[in-house]
Amino acid sequence: MKAIIHVGLKPGVLDPQGRAISRSLNDLGFEEVAAARQGKVIELDLTGDDSTAAKARVTEMCEKLLANTVIESYRVEIED
Amino acid sequence: MKAIIHVGLKPGVLDPQGRAISRSLNDLGFEEVAAARQGKVIELDLTGDDSTAAKARVTEMCEKLLANTVIESYRVEIED
Repeated sequence: MKAIIHVGLKPGVLDPQGRAISRSLNDLGFEEVAAARQGKVIELDLTGDDSTAAKARVTEMCEKLLANTVIESYRVEIED
Repeated sequence: MKAIIHVGLKPGVLDPQGRAISRSLNDLGFEEVAAARQGKVIELDLTGDDSTAAKARVTEMCEKLLANTVIESYRVEIED
């Protein structure tokens, strides 16, 4: 089983990395870029075949390690 | 218009970050995690409304700045 976790900054949190990306692209001549945001995707290979249980466990992993829930939000997808 | 770019390590490239994630999760008691990989997602807000042209431009951005094509592969999605 696979879990795909999307982690991104919560709306309203200052995003210096996104700013750096959009400014660099503008400087390279890509003037159509108005804004940029960068997030991360974590893919996990999981043993077991209970997808409901897996989702609960992966949510616990996010809360404990994978996301900084003060400033980041996350979304979990389970694939068979 | 929005562009969503997924950037990840090419298969076979050593992934110390993924290793660190899976070991940390195992150490925390999540023994069901067999492997982990971390990639990034960049979201761009674009002006203009020609999605074919946008896709070509975003691909150019990936080649020039957003991905290290020696070790990373990328995938571009355009949303209206």
